[in-house]
Amino acid sequence: MPTVLKASCKAPTNIAFIKYWGKKDEVLRVPENSSISMNLDKLFTITTVEFSPRFKKDSFQLKNEKTEVKEQQRVFKHLDQIRAKARITYKAKVMSVNNFPASTGLSSSASGMAALTVAAAAALKLKLSKKELSRLARLGSGSSCRSIPDGFVQWQAGNDHKTSVAVSLYPPDYWEILDVVVIASQEKKDISSTVGHSLAGSSPFLPVRLKMMPEKIKKLKMYLKQKDFSKFASLSEQEALNMHAVMITSNPSLLYWTPNTLTLMKQVQRWRQEGVNVYFTINTGQDIHLLTQKKDLNKLVSKLKNLKIVKKIIVNKPGRGARLIKKHLF
Amino acid sequence: MPTVLKASCKAPTNIAFIKYWGKKDEVLRVPENSSISMNLDKLFTITTVEFSPRFKKDSFQLKNEKTEVKEQQRVFKHLDQIRAKARITYKAKVMSVNNFPASTGLSSSASGMAALTVAAAAALKLKLSKKELSRLARLGSGSSCRSIPDGFVQWQAGNDHKTSVAVSLYPPDYWEILDVVVIASQEKKDISSTVGHSLAGSSPFLPVRLKMMPEKIKKLKMYLKQKDFSKFASLSEQEALNMHAVMITSNPSLLYWTPNTLTLMKQVQRWRQEGVNVYFTINTGQDIHLLTQKKDLNKLVSKLKNLKIVKKIIVNKPGRGARLIKKHLF
Repeated sequence: MPTVLKASCKAPTNIAFIKYWGKKDEVLRVPENSSISMNLDKLFTITTVEFSPRFKKDSFQLKNEKTEVKEQQRVFKHLDQIRAKARITYKAKVMSVNNFPASTGLSSSASGMAALTVAAAAALKLKLSKKELSRLARLGSGSSCRSIPDGFVQWQAGNDHKTSVAVSLYPPDYWEILDVVVIASQEKKDISSTVGHSLAGSSPFLPVRLKMMPEKIKKLKMYLKQKDFSKFASLSEQEALNMHAVMITSNPSLLYWTPNTLTLMKQVQRWRQEGVNVYFTINTGQDIHLLTQKKDLNKLVSKLKNLKIVKKIIVNKPGRGARLIKKHLF
Repeated sequence: MPTVLKASCKAPTNIAFIKYWGKKDEVLRVPENSSISMNLDKLFTITTVEFSPRFKKDSFQLKNEKTEVKEQQRVFKHLDQIRAKARITYKAKVMSVNNFPASTGLSSSASGMAALTVAAAAALKLKLSKKELSRLARLGSGSSCRSIPDGFVQWQAGNDHKTSVAVSLYPPDYWEILDVVVIASQEKKDISSTVGHSLAGSSPFLPVRLKMMPEKIKKLKMYLKQKDFSKFASLSEQEALNMHAVMITSNPSLLYWTPNTLTLMKQVQRWRQEGVNVYFTINTGQDIHLLTQKKDLNKLVSKLKNLKIVKKIIVNKPGRGARLIKKHLF
């Protein structure tokens, strides 16, 4: 009887305060700039991977969702890289479940690839450090490397496979920032982040964005160290707008915002004038993340509940990174 | 009996293909960059101005609309400059009517200040050339200088009062480009263009925008000369997005788009994929201008009429500049 090569992992999505947009190396997914994020404790993917000589081909199923051929192939290609590391050629069965809708800007590829990487590596008995897992996850989806370490995370851009890696800056309990995810609609986005990234260089503003980055990262880390919420969240909001300005001026233009995103952005500006200390950030998708603190949460939630476009609110604290779990999905 | 010092002018709004954003000189309204526009034949202001020793104070009335003190003062201040030129101190009565809603991005200040300038100068018997009128209008509202000459117009940025002036590039009948103005809602904008301009320098992207300008203007003028609609309109759309990216990244961020603006922008992108040759441009406000040609107009209008957010469509051809008319408003 062969050993059972099976493992399961739970990995969080993460929200970036300093965003990742544009790549120095498309294949290795080495980013143009370093980024800073926190893991979200309420949004995650659970993935079970089993390798076996009995399987004729790789299979990937995302529970309660249809997956496209393209997504399937991305998973299988990532498995190839992990199999190569373990020198094993068995085919795999992969099952995943997200506790949130995919492809609407909630970074399902970050949690998904992080969970796949950690589960597959464990199933194949690879003994990898957190850094090694982060690098490996990055090959599957850039931002997933940030979902490996705990809490507040910096993805050091680096220049090659070895130097491009995410590490924890502070544990989850360092500072209770809240990330209130607001789901307004569930249309999938027209253009995937992968395609979007490849257009980053077509914006005339990308060079300025990149030139400003080291100073911006330094400032954000200082505010994080000082736990200065207003400065930290305000800079995060500016940074998100900066990234979206680059997207908007790409050729062709990338308009990831929906009318609902814009409604919520403007509401946040108004609520701030009314004294609620809240800022927004937006990924490559329509869902908006509201950054706030415990003392402002009730006011914010009641304002959100008054908006009829708001379908769902998920209040996240900083969370742990990817970890193995004992319960399998199959 | 004193001579009657009274005159009336009809002046068009204009749509800029290369936008005006940011000023070198706030007082003289000398812009950071040259801009290119066309006058719109269906959107205009009619203004009657009378000066008389009988009037105790200046008065300004905008027919069917309330005017704020701030707007009143802007009109009176502009009258002061024209009175100074004529060495006359009589107070004035001003009445205006727009054939469209003000302050929603339809450039009411462009047509308004152009009409005021031409009517007031004529009422005071000033003999001014088109260039002199254009410079004088610019002092009241930057973009109004482009509503003085006919048809397709270039506002040469210049460096001072003398050199910053708009001139006609081609008459209205040179090329039948259509500007389809789509009115989706009539909320007034939160932040006036004048305040917005003063924030332009706070965007990290303004220097790049300005650096690219001479080349962009050269290209647009070449497409205009070649009457290459797709290239001309596509560059205009990119240019509008470029300006809005600068606004979005200002500090504080200027979000002039509304959810309806964004809905229409995305529709235009889709319609283009469906074969309708249409592009958009947007001023400092929510209303969207769709650039198209006669052969695509029917398809476009029927698509617009299917959208329930669309309240009104105004199809403009290139129009003449400001001109005196015989009929007075009072």
